[in-house]
Amino acid sequence: MLLEAIYHQPKSQYAYAYDNETLHIRVRTKRNDMDQVSVVWGDKYDFVPEKITTTKMEVFAKDTMFDYYQVAIKPPFRRFAYAFKFEKDDRTVFWNEVGFNEDNLSSSGVGMLWSPSGMFEYPFLNNVDVNSPPEWVKNAVFYQIFPERFANGDPSLNPKNVQAWTHDAVPTRDNFFGGDLQGVIDNLDYLKELGITCIYFTPFFEAFSNHKYDTIDYLKVDPQFGDNDTAKKLVKEAHKKGIRIMLDAVFNHSGYFFPPFQDVLKNGEKSRFKDWFHIKDFPVITDPLNYDTFAFVPEMPKLDTEHPEVKAYLLEVARYWVEDVGVDGWRLDVANEVDHQFWRDFRATVKKANPDAYILGEIWHNSMAWLGGDQFDAVMNYPVTNSIIDFFVKDEIDAESFMGRLDAIEISYPKQANEVAFNLLDSHDTPRLLTIADGNKQRMKLAALFQLTYTGAPCIYYGDEIGMDGGGDPGCRKPMIWEEEHQDQEMFHFYKTLIQLRKDHSALQDGTFRFLSAEKDNKYVAFERTGDHERFIIIMNSSESKLKVELADISQGTFRDVLNNGRYEVKNRKISAELEPLSSVILKEM
Amino acid sequence: MLLEAIYHQPKSQYAYAYDNETLHIRVRTKRNDMDQVSVVWGDKYDFVPEKITTTKMEVFAKDTMFDYYQVAIKPPFRRFAYAFKFEKDDRTVFWNEVGFNEDNLSSSGVGMLWSPSGMFEYPFLNNVDVNSPPEWVKNAVFYQIFPERFANGDPSLNPKNVQAWTHDAVPTRDNFFGGDLQGVIDNLDYLKELGITCIYFTPFFEAFSNHKYDTIDYLKVDPQFGDNDTAKKLVKEAHKKGIRIMLDAVFNHSGYFFPPFQDVLKNGEKSRFKDWFHIKDFPVITDPLNYDTFAFVPEMPKLDTEHPEVKAYLLEVARYWVEDVGVDGWRLDVANEVDHQFWRDFRATVKKANPDAYILGEIWHNSMAWLGGDQFDAVMNYPVTNSIIDFFVKDEIDAESFMGRLDAIEISYPKQANEVAFNLLDSHDTPRLLTIADGNKQRMKLAALFQLTYTGAPCIYYGDEIGMDGGGDPGCRKPMIWEEEHQDQEMFHFYKTLIQLRKDHSALQDGTFRFLSAEKDNKYVAFERTGDHERFIIIMNSSESKLKVELADISQGTFRDVLNNGRYEVKNRKISAELEPLSSVILKEM
Repeated sequence: MLLEAIYHQPKSQYAYAYDNETLHIRVRTKRNDMDQVSVVWGDKYDFVPEKITTTKMEVFAKDTMFDYYQVAIKPPFRRFAYAFKFEKDDRTVFWNEVGFNEDNLSSSGVGMLWSPSGMFEYPFLNNVDVNSPPEWVKNAVFYQIFPERFANGDPSLNPKNVQAWTHDAVPTRDNFFGGDLQGVIDNLDYLKELGITCIYFTPFFEAFSNHKYDTIDYLKVDPQFGDNDTAKKLVKEAHKKGIRIMLDAVFNHSGYFFPPFQDVLKNGEKSRFKDWFHIKDFPVITDPLNYDTFAFVPEMPKLDTEHPEVKAYLLEVARYWVEDVGVDGWRLDVANEVDHQFWRDFRATVKKANPDAYILGEIWHNSMAWLGGDQFDAVMNYPVTNSIIDFFVKDEIDAESFMGRLDAIEISYPKQANEVAFNLLDSHDTPRLLTIADGNKQRMKLAALFQLTYTGAPCIYYGDEIGMDGGGDPGCRKPMIWEEEHQDQEMFHFYKTLIQLRKDHSALQDGTFRFLSAEKDNKYVAFERTGDHERFIIIMNSSESKLKVELADISQGTFRDVLNNGRYEVKNRKISAELEPLSSVILKEM
Repeated sequence: MLLEAIYHQPKSQYAYAYDNETLHIRVRTKRNDMDQVSVVWGDKYDFVPEKITTTKMEVFAKDTMFDYYQVAIKPPFRRFAYAFKFEKDDRTVFWNEVGFNEDNLSSSGVGMLWSPSGMFEYPFLNNVDVNSPPEWVKNAVFYQIFPERFANGDPSLNPKNVQAWTHDAVPTRDNFFGGDLQGVIDNLDYLKELGITCIYFTPFFEAFSNHKYDTIDYLKVDPQFGDNDTAKKLVKEAHKKGIRIMLDAVFNHSGYFFPPFQDVLKNGEKSRFKDWFHIKDFPVITDPLNYDTFAFVPEMPKLDTEHPEVKAYLLEVARYWVEDVGVDGWRLDVANEVDHQFWRDFRATVKKANPDAYILGEIWHNSMAWLGGDQFDAVMNYPVTNSIIDFFVKDEIDAESFMGRLDAIEISYPKQANEVAFNLLDSHDTPRLLTIADGNKQRMKLAALFQLTYTGAPCIYYGDEIGMDGGGDPGCRKPMIWEEEHQDQEMFHFYKTLIQLRKDHSALQDGTFRFLSAEKDNKYVAFERTGDHERFIIIMNSSESKLKVELADISQGTFRDVLNNGRYEVKNRKISAELEPLSSVILKEM
């Protein structure tokens, strides 16, 4: 046993409440090191040998270096003290907060009540501390709309110098095409047909640029897009069709033309807004910058979210759109640079307005510090994005490394955060998926198929479903192609079919995910998704060659290929399949 | 290199803001495994090779399995992206969020901006998120008073059947001796002479028992102790003498005679207080218990601190004693069983009433989940208590294990929490130190000397300083001995001298602590405390034999033994000392 590889931290992603009665306990060991790992636990106020329980743990994730064990326990008094028991060959080692020992815990006395040389503890499961994301996100399918580019429903709002909306229009950093909210309302049936259940809008508040990330008025729809009544109408019409709405909260920084910042520029130290930003000295200058900004962009002054007035203003914004307009969630731009205290109060405000609202942080790196139940429901799952692209699209990593990277993310967060993670493959900030795939639609479909059958809520960037392409900003921001002859109808059918499949089967939403095959140097993976009454086996061939694959250790069952209707039988705990290059089979147990 | 042993978690005790401009980054490696460890870092929005900095880390703690490296960095824009660089012999390995690689980071591109295959991040240092405990605690010396047993200053308040206050009085679970707040006021000069700067009171609110942990009225001094005016007078008189006051908040549960609980007992489901507790069904019964309690004690019903009325009531209690009465801190009983959200609001309330108030949690196990800056300033440091007792008092562990256990605590929390940790050696819940030491006053003094020269605020349990003894509750709760002929004056002198020494030298308060010797099977330790302009070397012989010790690798200097006035010289980077059995020398650089 490599004891140095073992890791656990109480009250973290390794020990958390999954719901109001269930605790999840996890522990890390060196890969393939242990025969068996268990949790040894009891009530901390009645910690006597005859009342101690030993519960076996299962490997729920692996990466190239470690196994991660997990178990769910429902302690009768919502609290417990625990240690771990590791077994390998003839050796048994116990581990608690004081360290490792090879004696029996109950005889060594390290589990004594009131002994600081004691056990790990989950001292009490208080409901209010449980991270409880909204249930609806587990089976949501998101669609990201960049409002200036989705559809022009009200030409009377067109900006000056609007460009023609054609399938070969060329977006630039600062041109306009006239997209607006009425255009979205007009096309809700299109989204409903595709199977979308929630639209994620990049900002539509009044701003200067075409991307609207440089807010002027957080409480007002940009006049080029409509007005607040159009927004209310959009929400109402979308809700009628079973489609929710999520907005983009750019609270880290304002735009240059945000009136309080303009006031500071004009009145300097005398401005009543001088403390709304992080200004180092007056007058405000941009070279060298003497105020904090987003990145080093002078046009995006960082807001002082610790300032009571700023906080009150932004919390009112958060409340207004949820409570008065009826939107169903907030995606938080540059969420990791705003203070945690702000987000705690933001959560309280938003959940008070609508307990079912979804709070999604934009964070590109490890986000555990925001997912403890007091701040966000989930984060944008960029590490998953990149793992999918590196394996299926760019062909840069092998199956083992793909599994390792996904499982390392899995262990980074509580299960409930993974269940509602926001899984995107591209966005207004990246090249489009088809362009990343160099135009290879088979590879694009592999990525999408994995996204639509993996844990977490998938999000489709507008137009991907009809085969739109485009490089990084501004290329990825072309106006939506509505001329049917320029749409890839087969791609639309592919997306529609898979979305429907996901929606029809809860196993594909929040069922248990487990890799069945993800080996070193292999270009294919197989995985299982298991729900209460359903089981899927999905095999994906990411190589340019035909694949014959035989999976071992599969429990008895008969499966049907849901896309092509073939029949598969488990024989001697094995199941075999043949796959064309760059193709997949989705097998559903009959 | 044992890569499996390496550990780091962003935004945790391994990566936190120490103050408004400084980040501390830590990493764990296998013990004695690396030649050099560095942080490789840069601004995440300007992450180009020529602007990347490599900063060497130092080992700041060790245990029997691991080395812990730390470095302080002040990134110019209060944010940074980072990776680690490990060097051993000819091998160099880099590590970031994606994993390990042996290439140069800047050439491999894994540090690219917007790459989720990217660096660890500290995205932005927002001041409000920094854990900033009150400065005064760093040089505080606490004294714990159990109010019923310290001094009787107002016999008119004596409970019925009060026992005689004599040096050989025998406390029982339910007898009374008549201690009160006037008794404390009358003896403030005694505490001042000893050098005390803060009194920690176990509860003095109205309650049924002699220990007062079963609160009846949180807003009222127990009539046996005085009234709220006596408490105000106590605070005022103590402050005049430079002594602060910390109270005990028993917010996890109320007492049986708390009127809302009595109302529930009487009116059952019709009680307007029925949701103030965790009651499973009505009527309330105690066998089997059908409501949540502290442990399994029916007389201590657990309060529902999520309930808005309960929360409002308890937060008013928190505010009242700080703002209206002027106390300087709260010690939180059973702090780990109350919800985190309650403590966040508690912190906001208390710090608004007095930003300098100290918030101290009673938690006996790993407490990182409460020390992130949003809840407590510090916790009661029981793991340190036990390490000191096991090494100096019980002679049960060797020096290496002692160091390992202390350093493992050190790495468990941010530095600022360790600086104001509450280091006690005994209390009303444990046998007295002298009794744990089986009456061996030399061993007791070793423990106290370490406590008074170690990082964190020491707390003396009333009477230890005059050599009182006593077993677990009720033995440890004897009335304070005031008859001088029954006080150990030499012990008093010992405590007074060491307290003064600590108060005179900031190096002994928040100076850097480093073990100079703590070897396997040894019964002695040597350590250094270094401040801005001061250096101490302390050598402690915990064996029953004389000790000749030579410490190596000591930088040049001349030292004076502050207790016995001897002179010590570093020669060839070595310093030697001879120690009697169970004795210490405190060497101060001249």
